[in-house]
Amino acid sequence: MNTQEDLSGYRGEALEALRKAGAKIGDVLRILKNSQTYEGILIPRSEYGDRQHIVIKLKNGYNIGIKVTQNTQMKRMGEGSKPIFTSEPLPKQNLSLPRAAIISTGGTIASRVDYRTGAVRPALSATDLYSVVPELAEIAKIDARILLSLFSENIMPNHWTQIAKAIADCISQGVDGVVVAHGTDTMGYTAAALSFALQELPVPVIVVGSQRSADRPSSDAAANLVGAVTAAARAPFAEVAVAMHETTSDQSILLHRGTKVRKCHTSRRDTFRSVNSPPLARIRNHTITMLTDEYIRRDPARSIVVKPEFKEKVALVKFFPGMDPETIRWYQSRHYKGLIIEGTGLGHVSNTCFEPIQDAVDSGIVVAMTSQCIWGRVNMNVYDQGRDLQALGVIPLEDMLPETAIVKLMWVLGQTDDRRRAQELLKTNIAGELTRRTLLDE
Amino acid sequence: MNTQEDLSGYRGEALEALRKAGAKIGDVLRILKNSQTYEGILIPRSEYGDRQHIVIKLKNGYNIGIKVTQNTQMKRMGEGSKPIFTSEPLPKQNLSLPRAAIISTGGTIASRVDYRTGAVRPALSATDLYSVVPELAEIAKIDARILLSLFSENIMPNHWTQIAKAIADCISQGVDGVVVAHGTDTMGYTAAALSFALQELPVPVIVVGSQRSADRPSSDAAANLVGAVTAAARAPFAEVAVAMHETTSDQSILLHRGTKVRKCHTSRRDTFRSVNSPPLARIRNHTITMLTDEYIRRDPARSIVVKPEFKEKVALVKFFPGMDPETIRWYQSRHYKGLIIEGTGLGHVSNTCFEPIQDAVDSGIVVAMTSQCIWGRVNMNVYDQGRDLQALGVIPLEDMLPETAIVKLMWVLGQTDDRRRAQELLKTNIAGELTRRTLLDE
Repeated sequence: MNTQEDLSGYRGEALEALRKAGAKIGDVLRILKNSQTYEGILIPRSEYGDRQHIVIKLKNGYNIGIKVTQNTQMKRMGEGSKPIFTSEPLPKQNLSLPRAAIISTGGTIASRVDYRTGAVRPALSATDLYSVVPELAEIAKIDARILLSLFSENIMPNHWTQIAKAIADCISQGVDGVVVAHGTDTMGYTAAALSFALQELPVPVIVVGSQRSADRPSSDAAANLVGAVTAAARAPFAEVAVAMHETTSDQSILLHRGTKVRKCHTSRRDTFRSVNSPPLARIRNHTITMLTDEYIRRDPARSIVVKPEFKEKVALVKFFPGMDPETIRWYQSRHYKGLIIEGTGLGHVSNTCFEPIQDAVDSGIVVAMTSQCIWGRVNMNVYDQGRDLQALGVIPLEDMLPETAIVKLMWVLGQTDDRRRAQELLKTNIAGELTRRTLLDE
Repeated sequence: MNTQEDLSGYRGEALEALRKAGAKIGDVLRILKNSQTYEGILIPRSEYGDRQHIVIKLKNGYNIGIKVTQNTQMKRMGEGSKPIFTSEPLPKQNLSLPRAAIISTGGTIASRVDYRTGAVRPALSATDLYSVVPELAEIAKIDARILLSLFSENIMPNHWTQIAKAIADCISQGVDGVVVAHGTDTMGYTAAALSFALQELPVPVIVVGSQRSADRPSSDAAANLVGAVTAAARAPFAEVAVAMHETTSDQSILLHRGTKVRKCHTSRRDTFRSVNSPPLARIRNHTITMLTDEYIRRDPARSIVVKPEFKEKVALVKFFPGMDPETIRWYQSRHYKGLIIEGTGLGHVSNTCFEPIQDAVDSGIVVAMTSQCIWGRVNMNVYDQGRDLQALGVIPLEDMLPETAIVKLMWVLGQTDDRRRAQELLKTNIAGELTRRTLLDE
């Protein structure tokens, strides 16, 4: 490695200070500033990093950015210890175990060794996984591959296409289930995308992430991964689901249907919730308990149908008081194909938006309504303004999550250019995203 | 009234059919269509109503739109019964009771007689209120006035200004508390706006609504109104709060701090929730129990400070995968002053948005970050991309709700044109919108 690579992402004053200290990525640094001492491993910065801050990973696993000033003292303490992977032979494989594929796309769950390699590239060979979470060897024979190495906020609709195709590849090779490791930020969106793109699934597809990286004592990574592999190997359903902590304890993992799940807390381990629908299943003590009777059964004989196209030029517009109605006209001027409105209450926007919406519909844009309440069901028959919006051509999306709705509209417009057909598809339940009116409504 | 007024809002085929039947607004109609019979009171339509539908209010209180076709038969059954208000003298007034003002802005809670008068104008004299909810006479002497008659999705920032001034007027007349009747759709936004606009409150300001109109058996209007008047008259705090059902039963009403409350279900009566903060208080059996020690005490000697200006040209942008970064540039081209981003997780957006955000900040726009998780706290120090966004000048808004953040930014920019001062104000807790890190975080 040359020096430039060794200080990946650093520029300006920060780079200069690090060069002076003779430090490189992965070294342990001790930094003294304002009579505080910080010690940790130097981690790389992204291309957008500023010129002043040095970022180290503290012993407790937290990263901290320290601004380099005139009175910042820095000392290189040596190389950081490399992550320890076992050199022992693999645990004895039970050949009768189910086969699970793990596809990694990046995110916290895959971030264990980032700060060592300097790249956002996880170590995710089967050997590495077994050495980090030995329990996995008792659950399934694992094929692991790295497809992407992205923070999930950088996952785009074209990545959904890539992930869907990679899953289909694995399934065509006869695995008993697929696990997708993914950052949690947009995991709900990706789970919804895969739910629409992968039809007639023969086996389960489990999307999994973690809220705390594996190098922190409170990490949820291992428990979530064990849950996800257990579900991929043995769950009785063949749908796309998200596997995450049910509570803050490691004792139980919930499996949420991919179209009904949402990240509902910035930091808690039990951040993912099923909305307007019960979770699919719970895993506790290695036992999977179904929490609903309405699911698609696992059937290895079924032939997967892959429809991985997503059209961009679709936007999610969250209404708020004082929203400029010209916002809607702008999308029209940019030749958008679809708009999901996140309205208030039962599905409303101010009447100042009616004319732009009418014009958008008249120009051929599919406009559909969800609610920023998140829970509950859009009902545009109760109030006059709701009926008026329907008369303008706005489609009420029942109990569909706004986040699922934007993904579905991208997918629908990837399947057809015909507006009427698109509207029909949008209103038709494809993957559990629209549920019948139930007791949950009240 | 002339015929035109009698059929307010109807046009085209619907108007023709109603004329033929000799019907006018408020009449009972029996409509036969596709061997179904519907009977109900003809209600007026808004200016955006279509030409085909007739809307009647059924006996169960629901409105229904019926499309007029060739085989629709309609019969006028007579005039609908007028809402019955007592002609008895007012209940005996206890002169030692506290005084509460009720200001109505419209919404379901005020919709009782709309369908009779044909206008969105509630009957809200003190006499009417006492006759509808006689219990109120035992709680407070009420001054009632109608300020606005709007569905809350049509409430705009300039209405917040009007409402704030009206409340200040009432308070200057020495009332012991003020109740604001409001539609529930944007009640959270208005409560936040009043929290910023009304400073140094001497008495409580209680915003109240209902999920079911008072003419439906399951209405929550009376219980919420009793709760709101109780709080206005007797609560120990002097803050802006929202009074709504705690559960689906009428037994307990929660009082939520105006900056921390959110409508979280489209239809349930217990739709309002305190987010990232406990509710202020509970009312059960006419007893108010505080649920936190951190509140501003009622103090009639305190002099209210009214800061009712809100600047528009501020937008809420909810990020989603595939979001067009040009969206941000559009706001810049429209000379916006502020943007609240509803990012993912701890406060992230895709790196494709970084350049437009940098340009927006450089052009003088205040850009701040909240989370679409809703619960939890933005923390832009954990990941590199968060630190990078901060380096670009994006302000992390801690545990502030996105809906409160957009209102606060409008308010902040109504107070100052100076960008630095605006950023400082935005980061400073004004009305409980920013709370310290607590156990609720994990």
